Amino acid sequence: MSEPEKPVGVAVLGLGNVGSEVVRIIEESADDLAARVGAPLVLRGIGVRRLSGDRGVPADLLTDDIDSLVVRDDVDIVVEVMGPVEPSRKAILSALEHGKSVVTANKALLSVSTGELAQAAENARVDLYFEAAVAGAIPVIRPLTQSLAGDTVQRVAGIVNGTTNYILSEMDSTGADYEKALADASALGYAEADPTADVEGYDAAAKAAILASIAFHTRVTADDVYREGITKISPEDFASARALGCTIKLLSICERVAGDDGQQRVSARVYPALVPLEHPLATVNGAFNAVVVEAEAAGRLMFYGQGAGGAPTASAVTGDLVMAARNRVLGSRAPKESKYAQLSVAPMGVISTRYYVSMDVADKPGVLATVAAEFAKREVSIAEVRQEGVVGEGGRRVGARVVVVTHTATDAALSETVDALAELDVVQGVASVLRLEGTNE
Amino acid sequence: MSEPEKPVGVAVLGLGNVGSEVVRIIEESADDLAARVGAPLVLRGIGVRRLSGDRGVPADLLTDDIDSLVVRDDVDIVVEVMGPVEPSRKAILSALEHGKSVVTANKALLSVSTGELAQAAENARVDLYFEAAVAGAIPVIRPLTQSLAGDTVQRVAGIVNGTTNYILSEMDSTGADYEKALADASALGYAEADPTADVEGYDAAAKAAILASIAFHTRVTADDVYREGITKISPEDFASARALGCTIKLLSICERVAGDDGQQRVSARVYPALVPLEHPLATVNGAFNAVVVEAEAAGRLMFYGQGAGGAPTASAVTGDLVMAARNRVLGSRAPKESKYAQLSVAPMGVISTRYYVSMDVADKPGVLATVAAEFAKREVSIAEVRQEGVVGEGGRRVGARVVVVTHTATDAALSETVDALAELDVVQGVASVLRLEGTNE
Repeated sequence: MSEPEKPVGVAVLGLGNVGSEVVRIIEESADDLAARVGAPLVLRGIGVRRLSGDRGVPADLLTDDIDSLVVRDDVDIVVEVMGPVEPSRKAILSALEHGKSVVTANKALLSVSTGELAQAAENARVDLYFEAAVAGAIPVIRPLTQSLAGDTVQRVAGIVNGTTNYILSEMDSTGADYEKALADASALGYAEADPTADVEGYDAAAKAAILASIAFHTRVTADDVYREGITKISPEDFASARALGCTIKLLSICERVAGDDGQQRVSARVYPALVPLEHPLATVNGAFNAVVVEAEAAGRLMFYGQGAGGAPTASAVTGDLVMAARNRVLGSRAPKESKYAQLSVAPMGVISTRYYVSMDVADKPGVLATVAAEFAKREVSIAEVRQEGVVGEGGRRVGARVVVVTHTATDAALSETVDALAELDVVQGVASVLRLEGTNE
Repeated sequence: MSEPEKPVGVAVLGLGNVGSEVVRIIEESADDLAARVGAPLVLRGIGVRRLSGDRGVPADLLTDDIDSLVVRDDVDIVVEVMGPVEPSRKAILSALEHGKSVVTANKALLSVSTGELAQAAENARVDLYFEAAVAGAIPVIRPLTQSLAGDTVQRVAGIVNGTTNYILSEMDSTGADYEKALADASALGYAEADPTADVEGYDAAAKAAILASIAFHTRVTADDVYREGITKISPEDFASARALGCTIKLLSICERVAGDDGQQRVSARVYPALVPLEHPLATVNGAFNAVVVEAEAAGRLMFYGQGAGGAPTASAVTGDLVMAARNRVLGSRAPKESKYAQLSVAPMGVISTRYYVSMDVADKPGVLATVAAEFAKREVSIAEVRQEGVVGEGGRRVGARVVVVTHTATDAALSETVDALAELDVVQGVASVLRLEGTNE
């Protein structure tokens, strides 16, 4: 029994949805947490950027002097749930340098600065935990870093952004267009006033960077992640998806790829994809998250749950807090960051997937043959073609739309094909290009 | 860097499907594992019960002197994957007492002896890991003990036995009866020569005991688990289930229940249950496993994957091995067992669920009223009743079957009702009684 009575001091930075919930759990579950840690957790202070009015916590705990709070002698663990990158980065680095363990949910920060933070934690021989940074309450970081520590992860594919998943689910189930679904998401509090980080895939890309880093023991930052958002997805895309037995999801995909040189590389990418209805990710709707992991020995695993929201995120944060506190009591440490593999990042051009291309074409004979020839020239094999009349006002047929689904091809070959299609006289415009997930034919 | 060159010595006990795969991973992934651990893992010996012929591993590693192997000075970690309870228990205790960390997949042993083993590990200040004991490759133990360490788990419900899930999936999809589906499972290697441990629910009960122990920080053994097997499930039950929008799954359920005295208790139980088709466990088919966890802050989480087989189980075992080895290198320890809550186990009689009761009755007017009266007397409220003619040879109607679905009631009230129904003149026999999962009306 290592000094069971000496309390573990905690500072919480941020008092939003997550911070308030973390403070509530620390206070209301004090006895349980003390039993699990082996010592009481004592809240030493709550750092906020602006002191203002009643925040529902004891006023003497509140401070806007975050710099001083994180280095206090009676603080052992700093919980950072305030976002964004700054001033969190500065506060976390200062805490680590002063020997405090850190728990953070800050995916934007981690996706650009894990190396720096992990090194500071390693130098000070303290813990840096961040289970809440990806997929909220769903344990993903710990399974990847610990449970699968003896296995070889091949692929991670997940729905890790609740806002875009809500919007896409809404478009699929109601036939709404993107603007309408976004407005609904905003009204329900699922989308922020400026939804750019979500709908353009930046948030999903930050999480992809974190997942790729830990799954492949290598350093991947947000800038390494290929990224497409969902703003151009149309009701017509959903109609075509349904006709193909699919729905559309924004996926974060991390994959081990072998190059022509035999060298292993890492691919990390975010894009809206056609997902077959029988795929486990197809039924993950609304604000839920799910992550599918494929490993050599374990096979396919799936983790599912609430990926955002105050309480679910606070669950992951307090789990990390208890683990960091137990380590303090036991004199233990979390395993250090494992980045030995140092794989390089594969450019998007070499990635092979299947594609769905829809284009508006002239409504006359021979168009299909012309279109098909462009695919054939670049050795992109076509699996399926559908041609539909486009009906204008008054019910008159005003054009045609061709939908092509390819077999597996490289992104480079497909990009060239799409550029060439756009140049064709018979093609009025390429309406959309989406990749297919979970089918390799 | 704590002595990165000093190797970590490993002894593996058992060379069946799982053991062979663990040995293969240790050898083939040696460089990766060394990088993750911070020191090479070196296989010191493989303990088997009988030395016989070529086992596909270097002969000088094999020994049948398990007692000596587990106490060797150059062994730091013992991996036990030989089952059953003895001689594993003796070997593990000896290893722990000699300061070796232990990784085991032995659910039968853990479900009766965790207290003893955990105490021995605590005394010697070494690790006891057992991720592979429940749901194979699916990380369940670590998420419950670590990721959810700051949360309050309310309920765990899972499909954790692949053999019975294969049999029930087969009965559902082909209409086969139990004997035929069991024979198919045996032919495919999914069922053992003596399938009792699986089909009577003993294996699922052992896992329920382990899950309940860690989810509720309390001591639950296999004997505390209420248990029913699947041998009496009939094609008629599946037909009735389908008519109710359900399928049938063998579930292991662990739940926190509040008694009339306000005291919290733990319920752990295994039985075949009607599961609504829209429930996440309904689509877990074949030999797959899945566990649904409901926690206060995290909400509902689901974990899905391969619950058995050599490679998936070996993935979980080697993950534990890497963690135990890292702890050796870092001078760290896994958190000790947390059993502070000491909740008592609730008897089955106080557990409330919904029920499905099917009975053969006389084919005459007034029967339904008589049957309904028995439910009413014990305040078991009926949600739905269906009466069907039973057609005999030659197409002649020879009797009737009544299916009753109740609202929530206690097991005690229902048992009394079923006993009373069996005594009625108009009831020829109660064909089956099943509980419903995931609906509270």
